[in-house]
This record gives sequence, C-alpha cells and structure tokens, in this order.
Amino acid sequence: MKLVHYQLKHPYTHGRIGVVEKDTVIDLHATQQELLKQQKLPSDSVIIPADPRLFFQRAKVHIKEAEALMVQMKNHTTSHVFKRDEVILETPSANPSKIICVGTNYADHVKEMGSELPEHPVLFAKFHNALIGPEDAIYKASATEKLDYEVELAVVIGETATKVSEEAALDYVAGYAIGNDISARDLQKRTSQWLQGKSLDHTTPVGPWLVTTSELPDPSNLSIKSYVNGELRQSSNTEHLIFDIPHLISFISNLMTLEPGDIILTGTPDGVGFALNPSQFLNDGDSVTLEIEQIGTLTNRVVSS
Amino acid sequence: MKLVHYQLKHPYTHGRIGVVEKDTVIDLHATQQELLKQQKLPSDSVIIPADPRLFFQRAKVHIKEAEALMVQMKNHTTSHVFKRDEVILETPSANPSKIICVGTNYADHVKEMGSELPEHPVLFAKFHNALIGPEDAIYKASATEKLDYEVELAVVIGETATKVSEEAALDYVAGYAIGNDISARDLQKRTSQWLQGKSLDHTTPVGPWLVTTSELPDPSNLSIKSYVNGELRQSSNTEHLIFDIPHLISFISNLMTLEPGDIILTGTPDGVGFALNPSQFLNDGDSVTLEIEQIGTLTNRVVSS
Repeated sequence: MKLVHYQLKHPYTHGRIGVVEKDTVIDLHATQQELLKQQKLPSDSVIIPADPRLFFQRAKVHIKEAEALMVQMKNHTTSHVFKRDEVILETPSANPSKIICVGTNYADHVKEMGSELPEHPVLFAKFHNALIGPEDAIYKASATEKLDYEVELAVVIGETATKVSEEAALDYVAGYAIGNDISARDLQKRTSQWLQGKSLDHTTPVGPWLVTTSELPDPSNLSIKSYVNGELRQSSNTEHLIFDIPHLISFISNLMTLEPGDIILTGTPDGVGFALNPSQFLNDGDSVTLEIEQIGTLTNRVVSS
Repeated sequence: MKLVHYQLKHPYTHGRIGVVEKDTVIDLHATQQELLKQQKLPSDSVIIPADPRLFFQRAKVHIKEAEALMVQMKNHTTSHVFKRDEVILETPSANPSKIICVGTNYADHVKEMGSELPEHPVLFAKFHNALIGPEDAIYKASATEKLDYEVELAVVIGETATKVSEEAALDYVAGYAIGNDISARDLQKRTSQWLQGKSLDHTTPVGPWLVTTSELPDPSNLSIKSYVNGELRQSSNTEHLIFDIPHLISFISNLMTLEPGDIILTGTPDGVGFALNPSQFLNDGDSVTLEIEQIGTLTNRVVSS
C-alpha cells in the first residue's frame, strides 16, 4: 500500500491520510465512514484517523486497518476518490519527534568524502523545520553557496521501539520512502558537528508516499539513484549499506526510544556534487530527481530563498 | 516571574502552567478564570492556557498576560495556590520542536576537552526523548560507562525567530532556565558526530522553572556552577561565553527558524568529569546540583536504568 498525506486543492482541505491507487488518491477516513454506512454499521466505529498526526501516533495499527479496508473496497465503491492533479502531496510523516540521519553508510561515499570507514553508525540530526514534501521546492538560502543532494532510503517508524533486536527490528517499521538529505557543505564542514549544514529551513524532501511493509517487506536490495537536471549522479543499491536497516533500527533503539512517525535517513551512496571534479552544487532552478526501486521517484526544484 | 509546568499530586492533574511565588505555586489559568468571575466578567475571556503545550505555542503573548495577572493579584486572592510539596515540577517547555546545543563555548572547557577554539558556534542536537524535569532522575543506561554532567544556561524561545539581528535577539526569548547537557562520553566520542552520546533516553533535565525576561533581562553576567554529591566541580560565569546569547540566537535563526518553546543549551564551562584527573563519571545514586545566579538550583539524582 502507498500511503499519502494529501491536501485537496478545491475546496482546500487540511492534510489528510489517503492511499494512492494507479492515478488516484483514496481518502481512508471518509471511505471507511462511507463503507460503514453502506453496511448500516454505526459510523462512530471509524478507526482510521483523517489527521496525519493522529494516524502516525499509532501508525502500525492504522496501517493494518487501512489495508483491511482496501481489501473490502474490492467489492465496494467509494465517492472519496480524487484524481492525482486534484490533490497536493505532503510529506507522509509531517510531525516526527526525531529525524535521525546516518552518515558515511555506503563505502564508496565514505571514500569520496575523504572520511574513514565507521566502526559504529554515525548519527546526526535534522529538525522539523527542514522537512518538506514531494511537491515543495528545496530552498537555497543565501547562507550557503554549496548546497548538495543525497538520495537516501527513508525508514518511517510505526511503533514505539526500545532496545529491539536486529531480528525483530523490521516489525517496528511503518514503511519506506525516498529522502533527500540536502546538505550545505560549507556550513556542514565549518565546524566539527554537521547539524548547521543539515537542517536549513525547507530543505529535506521525504516522499512521495510511504510504501508499507506488506508491499515492501525487504528493503535490503533496492536500486537507488539520483539525477540533477536529468543527468545521472548517484547509482547504487541498498545492498551496499555498511549498516543495514535492521542493524540501524536496533542500534538506534538501544540508545534512544524510537516513536511512531520518526524518520531515519539511512545514508547516501557516492556521486554527490561535492565529490565531483569539479564540485557541482545546486542552484536556483535546478531539478533533483531521486529514484528508489519499488518506491518510485521524488522530484523537487531548487529555488533561491 | 518564575514560570512552572506542574502537576498536582492529589488529585493527580495533567501538567499545567503556574507561577512560583515564595513557597507556593499559583495556577495561572484557574486564577485568571476566578478573577474574571469576581469581577463579573465573562469567564470565556480567559487567555492564559492551562496546557503547557498551548501556553508555549504563543509563549511571549501568554507570559505578558500572566505578568499582568500577577500585578492584578496584589489586590485579590485566589484559591488556586498550592504548597510546593503538593506539586511535582516538570520541565517548563516539554514539547520543543528543537533542542539545540552549543558545544565548546567556554574557552577553558575547550582547552580541557582538547578541542580547538571555534570560529563559528558548534551546534548539535538532542531529541525530545532525552528531556526530563527538575524532579526526575537522570537515567544511566547500560550502554554507557562514562556519563558526565554539563551545567548550561538554557534559553527558551518565546516567539518565532527567523534571521533576527543580535540587537533584536533577546526580544525573542521567553526566559531562562538551567540545563544539564548530560553526555555519555564513550558514545559521544566513538564517532565524529556527538548525537548518540547526547540524546540517551531521560538524561537531560531542564528547569526548575523559566525565569522570564522581565525578571532577568540580561543573561550576560551570571555565575554558573555544578556540584556532584556536594563537591564543587564547575564554577564560571556566563560572561565567559565565547559566543554570547544574542549572537547565538541571531546565528541560529539565520540558519533555521526558531519556534516558541525551542530550547538552546548554550555550552558548559570547564570542570566536567571527563577532564578531571582521573576522570570521574556519574554512577547510580549520585546527586548532581547545578546553580545559576538569578535562576536557582537544579538537583537530579542518577539512577541505573
């Protein structure tokens, strides 16, 4: 299932949770309500929240319910279906309590950045101010001259996870998305700690949807690519992750409790703009397209802010 | 004014916003409601939220209203006054969108840690899972053998701040508190990025209250101390900050928008346990007391978790 956080354009609605099927978006809450009515069941037994914040507070439970609903829908119709161009897609988990990024997690990228192979996962943070959706523009602030792209597999947590084992780790995942860990290299590298180059306002698209684990149970062998203005820049596979997804979830959850909606950006392969010769950074008007197998594509424009 | 986030013990209440006066806590929302009733004014004109989350969403506005109420209270009585031992104090701003820490910001501490004097403020993050209140215990997780204290002046933001100047920076502050930037040195230093040693669950007390800017307009010359089991460990003054509070707020707000309730931990002076010879780390049963002039003291026990 491809879960989305969408807004209807006319009449404008606040963000709601839906599912993408072919070229349409189906509203989950309204559809469940309608189905109950058709079946003459009380409509107050609707379980799937419309509000993305409430949905992600108990993501695993709500996803399960949504999947059951989509099965039921095969024998029913719903009037709460919108064409793709009637909606705006927002980032699926818009209010994560944490955005945890993993650095230097593909060997070829470690090499191109002149870093050392890590003995332990390297963790750093982004804050919520950085997070944007699949249809938003990436802001290039005047504070940086060296804005760079990084395609990454984004893991969204579905259930509170404390000290989980690698074996159990994937049970705590709500789903997977594509993330662009946009980095201002000049700001990232002017001090020892990367945060100030990693959390500029309106710079980190995550989307376009969340592919749930029933549709994508195994994230360990997915091709991952990035393009700038159509030119291939990064091309690798998640099988080359130094620390794989179960390891990362277990490792992080042994340090800090992961909450539903939390986002882990799992590291980028080689081919970032900084490492090209000569370096090539993002400028106003550039278009960055990211592709991950079984998830889809995420394209964002860069605009000066 | 000393603003608190408190819970009543019997009957138990959810967190509410109050003011500390001498040995009592006055509930702001209930008092404003009562006063309106006494004056035969409609009680739906209460402006000060009881809920800390709502209070901090518009902190500056609500603090102003609270201060006006406290002036009015000189000629009135309120029944919503509790003795200090009837309540539990929580951390004032319990749901910040960001906890931004400043590293290496006192020259003597830079020296003792073997770091270099920074050209720019060094920023790193903690997440919400780490944040605790003045009466909570600091958890010593089994993942670390080198848990350390760091007394810091905590700045809580009162109003959305984007690209503010140093001159205007203090206008965006709600108030000041004491923070303990508890650090697991072994985890902090095993990779280049400090996050994993800085955001362990239940490790970062901020409190005991927020001293608002009308009571503490100038944070630039405050003595700052820490004690472990009564033994003085750190003793300095905020005048020794390499990057002072206005500079930090301006610097950060030029990179990322600060929101009401956001917390900035502004750096620690020398004397941390790591730098003692031999190093002395925190263990189960230890008591850490922090003192900042014009704010008060913050004491937390350490317990194995």
